[in-house]
Amino acid sequence: MKPLDQGSIIPLYYQVKQRLDERIQSGEWKPGDKIDSENQLMTVFNVSRNTAKKAIEEMVQEGTLYRIQGKGTFVSHPKFEQSLGGFYSFSQVLKEKGFKPTDIVLEVDEVTPSARVREGLQLSTEEKVVQMKRIRCADGEPIILETSYMPKSVVKNKEDLREVGVSSLYDLLSARYGVTVIRAKEAFEPVLIRDHESIHLNTEVGKPALLLERTAFDTDGCPVEFCISIVRGDRCRFYTDLV
Amino acid sequence: MKPLDQGSIIPLYYQVKQRLDERIQSGEWKPGDKIDSENQLMTVFNVSRNTAKKAIEEMVQEGTLYRIQGKGTFVSHPKFEQSLGGFYSFSQVLKEKGFKPTDIVLEVDEVTPSARVREGLQLSTEEKVVQMKRIRCADGEPIILETSYMPKSVVKNKEDLREVGVSSLYDLLSARYGVTVIRAKEAFEPVLIRDHESIHLNTEVGKPALLLERTAFDTDGCPVEFCISIVRGDRCRFYTDLV
Repeated sequence: MKPLDQGSIIPLYYQVKQRLDERIQSGEWKPGDKIDSENQLMTVFNVSRNTAKKAIEEMVQEGTLYRIQGKGTFVSHPKFEQSLGGFYSFSQVLKEKGFKPTDIVLEVDEVTPSARVREGLQLSTEEKVVQMKRIRCADGEPIILETSYMPKSVVKNKEDLREVGVSSLYDLLSARYGVTVIRAKEAFEPVLIRDHESIHLNTEVGKPALLLERTAFDTDGCPVEFCISIVRGDRCRFYTDLV
Repeated sequence: MKPLDQGSIIPLYYQVKQRLDERIQSGEWKPGDKIDSENQLMTVFNVSRNTAKKAIEEMVQEGTLYRIQGKGTFVSHPKFEQSLGGFYSFSQVLKEKGFKPTDIVLEVDEVTPSARVREGLQLSTEEKVVQMKRIRCADGEPIILETSYMPKSVVKNKEDLREVGVSSLYDLLSARYGVTVIRAKEAFEPVLIRDHESIHLNTEVGKPALLLERTAFDTDGCPVEFCISIVRGDRCRFYTDLV
């Protein structure tokens, strides 16, 4: 390995970062691979512990690397990048990116809606709604924990939703009820992963996540789904063009 | 106060929540006001400690209330709602909402750009960029900690940026350099507030925040600012229409 440029104005820790980045970019180190330990980096690059530590520290903070307590430091998986430029369905997006979308339906129930759900679905009465909780996975990895609420006037038989996972929710609404979702309102807030969410999402309590609130509308402009998603912050990133 | 409906199918803790919500909605309790303690709620509503606790717990999690250790529970300030439907400037948005935007410029410097900044600004060389760190406030309350990077070909004299705070950055770029920002790309990721950020934002370490990465373009489509913002999650919420 080429030695660092000791005479450069570029700090040594930064040069170490650049070298590690190159190994990741070139594919020598792949997502999930364990990288060299601090001790190994000290030897390979002939730098102090502080320099090695700082390089790793910054790459962890930037999300390029992640640590597992007592196991080492690993190369992060690239995040799913989701454009907010138009209507999207998560399963559709995953397919387009070459991933296999799967849903694990945790529960389907009839519940009394909270004020927020009632407002989102524009329900005037105290009528119950159909609630579906599911884990949404990409190639088997849990990414989003999602709770959908739908009016009973849309989902006539909640047992139909058991097919979600085989078929996508929107495909099912369309095929079975003739309800086509074409537009949505979405809001984003940062939150921390809570206890039960960490179990379903296979991640740690207290990690950053996005709380995504979606109201989906059909071709008549009626709200047919109100949905609260907990999106893993280490796996997803949203972007948009502001014109 | 009207007693709770003990015979209702609506759980008691939920009825307590509804009553507290009414007092907030009606303006009886204002943002920053201390609400009744658990003991007081137990007496007022004639409920168990668990019921009072659960009502408060949920309202804290939903963001309607917040706790200060050893001081009590308080009514949250409503969040700033920012539409991603088109190009916006934070100071413009605040003004439109009736708030006074102020910026505290922490530092203005010439720095060697990181790979990410260089890529964002489409710089081919190792030329330095002008970096400005500032705290963006609404009516004096710190909301966003922002670090902007601008090419030296745009900001000819970094001392000019000392006027930011009196004038907005975009107004200044336009008035002094004839550079008009009309479009931006923005990306969102959830993060945790770090040590130095908590000091500037007057919030706690480990609280959820949004990391917002903006690239702003002028009328020729040239990137003139690359900007990384830490946005307080308890004060801001972003939303968009997906059509």
